[in-house]
Amino acid sequence: MSTVDYESLIISLPNYPQPGIMFKDVTPVFANPVAFKALVDEICEAFKDAGITKVVGAEARGFILGAPVALQMGVGFVPARKPGKLPRNTISESYGLEYGTDTLHIHADALGPDDVVLLVDDLVASGGTAIAQTHLIEKCGAKVGGLAFLIELAYCHPREAIGKETDAPVYAAFTVEQENWD
Amino acid sequence: MSTVDYESLIISLPNYPQPGIMFKDVTPVFANPVAFKALVDEICEAFKDAGITKVVGAEARGFILGAPVALQMGVGFVPARKPGKLPRNTISESYGLEYGTDTLHIHADALGPDDVVLLVDDLVASGGTAIAQTHLIEKCGAKVGGLAFLIELAYCHPREAIGKETDAPVYAAFTVEQENWD
Repeated sequence: MSTVDYESLIISLPNYPQPGIMFKDVTPVFANPVAFKALVDEICEAFKDAGITKVVGAEARGFILGAPVALQMGVGFVPARKPGKLPRNTISESYGLEYGTDTLHIHADALGPDDVVLLVDDLVASGGTAIAQTHLIEKCGAKVGGLAFLIELAYCHPREAIGKETDAPVYAAFTVEQENWD
Repeated sequence: MSTVDYESLIISLPNYPQPGIMFKDVTPVFANPVAFKALVDEICEAFKDAGITKVVGAEARGFILGAPVALQMGVGFVPARKPGKLPRNTISESYGLEYGTDTLHIHADALGPDDVVLLVDDLVASGGTAIAQTHLIEKCGAKVGGLAFLIELAYCHPREAIGKETDAPVYAAFTVEQENWD
């Protein structure tokens, strides 16, 4: 359970970046040191017994939350990046987004069979980015040990979609049950 | 002074992403928990008396190092992002890179006159990205309190270029004096 009122910090922007999307600007959470620390603390606490050996975060907001979680857990951070950003041999996965499609890569040598990975991102909606990352992690022979998010848009049913791909636990610091467009 | 052999972890890739560029792949530093922690610790130590109130990091590798430094310093993290990524009113600055040009934005309300900012990035070469960020910080009325990097390519003379813009101290965990293309 969160002890911080993330909702008061997150700014909702209707119809951004396109009509029908309620964009969640989470930058004020990272700019607030009390909220930022509380968020990292609660994610680390939630997965403290999960045997995590690496954190994976997706470009670019997943880096802002994933890297501090990795540091505090005492494990390495592995970036999942957009095409053309990782210079060495990569494994890739394409996926659908709320709006459009995208591809993520990780370095082929970044994870191995001994790794138990915590996937960290700022927001989960339909779960497409998270599922692409679970596929990347599994293609490397590693195991997904958990998924952690600042915000879960529950009305997009991410837990149902993720649950079809992995039985790893999902943690969200703040859940939006239904979007208010009024 | 660094206590970790960053050089053994950083992978140099000649002629990437284009001929004449020696790309530095720093992802193995972030994937190594001992090196990652040592790096964050030494940056925090170097600026512990600088009165830092915010850390700014540039998309995207600056997020991986800047966000943990902010968390450990107990200050907020503010991302400097590429065009179209920050949803609210921004201040922007265009600049030349080693290869091409780019523009960075920060939210106009992210920094104010009371802020003393530590600018964090993975690498400094000519200093163009860092100087663009110092301009962004100053346009917000804030002060640059320091600049910290994992790698400094000294043969590109970044300290001279940055020194023309700000007298804030520059810290680099690892300095490459001369590139070896053999």
